[in-house]
Amino acid sequence: MWMETKTDVEEASRSRASLSRRVLNTLLLCTGDMECLDEYMQDKSFVLQLGVWGLRGVTRVILANNPLSGALILVALYWASPWQGLLGTLGILVSTLTAVIMGQDSAEVSGGLHGFNGMLVSLLIGVFSSTGDWYWWLLLPVCLGSATCVFLFSGLSSVLDRWDLPVAVFPFNIIIILYLLCTGQDNPYFPHHAATPPGALELNGTKLIATEVIRGIPLGVGQIFACGALGPSLLILGAVLLYSPLLAVHALLGSAIGTLAGLSMAVRHDSLYLGLSGFNGALGCMAIGGLFFAISWKTHLLAIASAFLSAYADIALSNLLGTVGLPACSWAATLTATLMLLLTGSLAAYRIPIGQVRAPEHNLRSRSQWAAGNTAERESTDV
Amino acid sequence: MWMETKTDVEEASRSRASLSRRVLNTLLLCTGDMECLDEYMQDKSFVLQLGVWGLRGVTRVILANNPLSGALILVALYWASPWQGLLGTLGILVSTLTAVIMGQDSAEVSGGLHGFNGMLVSLLIGVFSSTGDWYWWLLLPVCLGSATCVFLFSGLSSVLDRWDLPVAVFPFNIIIILYLLCTGQDNPYFPHHAATPPGALELNGTKLIATEVIRGIPLGVGQIFACGALGPSLLILGAVLLYSPLLAVHALLGSAIGTLAGLSMAVRHDSLYLGLSGFNGALGCMAIGGLFFAISWKTHLLAIASAFLSAYADIALSNLLGTVGLPACSWAATLTATLMLLLTGSLAAYRIPIGQVRAPEHNLRSRSQWAAGNTAERESTDV
Amino acid sequence: MWMETKTDVEEASRSRASLSRRVLNTLLLCTGDMECLDEYMQDKSFVLQLGVWGLRGVTRVILANNPLSGALILVALYWASPWQGLLGTLGILVSTLTAVIMGQDSAEVSGGLHGFNGMLVSLLIGVFSSTGDWYWWLLLPVCLGSATCVFLFSGLSSVLDRWDLPVAVFPFNIIIILYLLCTGQDNPYFPHHAATPPGALELNGTKLIATEVIRGIPLGVGQIFACGALGPSLLILGAVLLYSPLLAVHALLGSAIGTLAGLSMAVRHDSLYLGLSGFNGALGCMAIGGLFFAISWKTHLLAIASAFLSAYADIALSNLLGTVGLPACSWAATLTATLMLLLTGSLAAYRIPIGQVRAPEHNLRSRSQWAAGNTAERESTDV
Repeated sequence: MWMETKTDVEEASRSRASLSRRVLNTLLLCTGDMECLDEYMQDKSFVLQLGVWGLRGVTRVILANNPLSGALILVALYWASPWQGLLGTLGILVSTLTAVIMGQDSAEVSGGLHGFNGMLVSLLIGVFSSTGDWYWWLLLPVCLGSATCVFLFSGLSSVLDRWDLPVAVFPFNIIIILYLLCTGQDNPYFPHHAATPPGALELNGTKLIATEVIRGIPLGVGQIFACGALGPSLLILGAVLLYSPLLAVHALLGSAIGTLAGLSMAVRHDSLYLGLSGFNGALGCMAIGGLFFAISWKTHLLAIASAFLSAYADIALSNLLGTVGLPACSWAATLTATLMLLLTGSLAAYRIPIGQVRAPEHNLRSRSQWAAGNTAERESTDV
Repeated sequence: MWMETKTDVEEASRSRASLSRRVLNTLLLCTGDMECLDEYMQDKSFVLQLGVWGLRGVTRVILANNPLSGALILVALYWASPWQGLLGTLGILVSTLTAVIMGQDSAEVSGGLHGFNGMLVSLLIGVFSSTGDWYWWLLLPVCLGSATCVFLFSGLSSVLDRWDLPVAVFPFNIIIILYLLCTGQDNPYFPHHAATPPGALELNGTKLIATEVIRGIPLGVGQIFACGALGPSLLILGAVLLYSPLLAVHALLGSAIGTLAGLSMAVRHDSLYLGLSGFNGALGCMAIGGLFFAISWKTHLLAIASAFLSAYADIALSNLLGTVGLPACSWAATLTATLMLLLTGSLAAYRIPIGQVRAPEHNLRSRSQWAAGNTAERESTDV
Repeated sequence: MWMETKTDVEEASRSRASLSRRVLNTLLLCTGDMECLDEYMQDKSFVLQLGVWGLRGVTRVILANNPLSGALILVALYWASPWQGLLGTLGILVSTLTAVIMGQDSAEVSGGLHGFNGMLVSLLIGVFSSTGDWYWWLLLPVCLGSATCVFLFSGLSSVLDRWDLPVAVFPFNIIIILYLLCTGQDNPYFPHHAATPPGALELNGTKLIATEVIRGIPLGVGQIFACGALGPSLLILGAVLLYSPLLAVHALLGSAIGTLAGLSMAVRHDSLYLGLSGFNGALGCMAIGGLFFAISWKTHLLAIASAFLSAYADIALSNLLGTVGLPACSWAATLTATLMLLLTGSLAAYRIPIGQVRAPEHNLRSRSQWAAGNTAERESTDV
């Protein structure tokens, strides 16, 4: 009886251990780039594949690449605003489909690279529209804008490839500026709000509230998706955490640095409270901290420098574009990250070739491998 | 007697057939790129050669390359305004001569590539001047501006050659913006009108007149030469038709698309009536439809997409530059066409290398030939 | 006695001749690039080396490369304003040290290439600040701005190297515009003056004073260092003369051409009197006249064309950026010189590869040598 019980307990503990091991394994499978999923999806229907490509695209916005994180982010967007969620979903589908029709590289399409710019354009068209939610005519520019992103992505990649640079969100930044310029604020069909520059003087100088400023830091992560609510922003942060804890830490760090930069330049309080000061810093910090550079204390310092530069450049560009009522979107972070990727000198040794960029943890693990591979590759291309 | 008459008739009909065949042959010789003329001109005097180079340059503005078309266009310009015709002629001569003096590539000079930017700068300086016609001091900036175009063409070609891109009208667009910025609207020597952005609100909202809008479509072709009269615009369209019917169709189609885009954005009525909404669409459509891409139903669709993108980008840029009183010129079409030429994916296979671009009909005929040649060439340059 | 005296005289004259020969040799050693100093400095302490690198950096602003000239220029700056001198010194030290820490190419660092942008940023931050001298908080943006220049220099060099172009003062121009945009005119911590565009209408139209205009020509050379006093400007011109008489002549010539261009466009009188119209012309003229091109009558004409283009482009850009209260800095000259370096055609044969650029006199002497070397080098890189 006692023996039996002991065996029972042993078995139970064993099965629990095996269960927790299985759960852990499953969890580990769900983190990082989830490359195993690609093999599994190969013989599935086109609609299912398109879904996975789209979800990967959703996470590309925040420099991740994981369908589960994408699903979490979509949930967060629908939670914040169903209309915005719908626009984002439409944008990602339209641009991915356009890429399929235009015969773009299938590896790029399945990696979600042709979806994220379209999604951002759609979200921002929705946010800046002054017609309110459920204005169905807006689907027209959303579809056109998303489709145009593919043209820009394809064209820009030809140019940027020469320096092994990613196209990143350049297409989104260009298209949204063109859209806002095209329609103008008083357009009879597609009117929109003017963006207020962060340096605008406050009409009634209220005191800065510290808790609100701190609340703006996680909101800065949400603002990457033009989402200004705390709950969804935290869920988005969780999605990044699922992909890579290192990236999530850099996202928060970058947002905090952006807020600090905003404070040092005495920007509008709203800009700090809503996380608008933080999101360029977050993007600039994430791009360098682990993603495009193998993480080390040197690249960590570079990521901090990149966050500061992104944040200050964002204030500068917002003030400039604000004179004609335009937002600076993520121009600052995109340009700063591009600059950092072009750096020569001892820091360039930490850079990961664009084709080999994976989750930061994976980058770190395979660093010695790609370093060797990189040298061999360079030799072969230099001939 | 009857036999004789019959022979007479036969002979007459034969001579008529031979005559019409000769006329047709001569006509065919006069269409397309007229490369036969180059051989004929080789031993002629420099002034005659310069004339042909200039006439080729005139047609380069509208993406054609045919001295007879050039003569027709010059006639149209002198018809619309003798002063404008004079400025255009001066511009093309000055910039072509500058290129000769600066020792630019002789094939480029004789192809008229160094003339068209200078001509456009001269025409636009004339159009924007608020001093009226026959203000002789204007010849000074016209000469300087035309000459400077050669510097920009030469410098930009070094950069753009890396991606096998044409310099197109980038020099014109840069120089005219610099000229207008340099003089300012209230300059004591060279005052000019401010450009009105298409999104400007109309003071007295009149109803849109459909016939005027339709009239704006052919005017859009004339506006490529800053010409706003119907007769000369139709003559210019005829000149394009002489070079290549396919190009003429795309010119009209592009202008119509541009007008449609203008309508969808509710631009100023004047902008529609004068063809200002159409000309960027026309240029964007012509560049893709047959000229830089071998025509097929796929590239035809791409040409339509290019026309829409050019037109919307033109409205956007005009609204932006209009805030400081500047016109957007043909920035939109030039940038859009450059983007389309950079496209990767399945559409890139239809692209014709810049060095082998001829009239669309010729491009189509020799497609299989250059496709083979292109592969061979790429292999040799890739080593 | 007589013999003795004669010998005495002979000896005295001999010693005088030998002395003057020695002085001349020493003087010749002190002109040009002073490459002999580099060997002498190799085993000296880091602080001394840093000093020489800094002094070379000071002269890089004015396209020279000579530590003694650098010392003269620093004296001129401290003479004009001790606060400005301090800011400039700090800027050059911070950016050179940042380059050392970031592991930039040591040849570039020791050539002063990482110092001059930081120095210019610091000087301009000081000039535009509206807080007056000795506002110590200003050291914060001065240090940050100078350090950021190194990032931009390194990143831009990766791009521009493809066309063998120098980075020149692009980093300075970008950073100062970003700084001024970031802080805004009414910033509570770092307020600054708005720049007045040269085309601004004068409130009380006074008559132009010819002597003041002529006084503006040497001031144009000083304005390269944002220095508007006559004495220090002449000292700076003297420093250039020490490096290379040919460069000094082109500096004055360019400044005169810039003033002429300003007169032809009827710019504000202040702009002429203070040398602000001249300094872009001076830079544009110096870059082409001897430095990046081997001097000949052809390149001398090109230098004059470059000066005119720089000056007119500066008026245009100043008018544009002036609408948002920004200065055009040396954008015009930098862009113009870059354009000239990209020229194809017969003039390209006179161009000196960036790696072999020395003082104009030295360039001229070794022209046949580098021409041969250049051909050989090209052959080896073309493989």
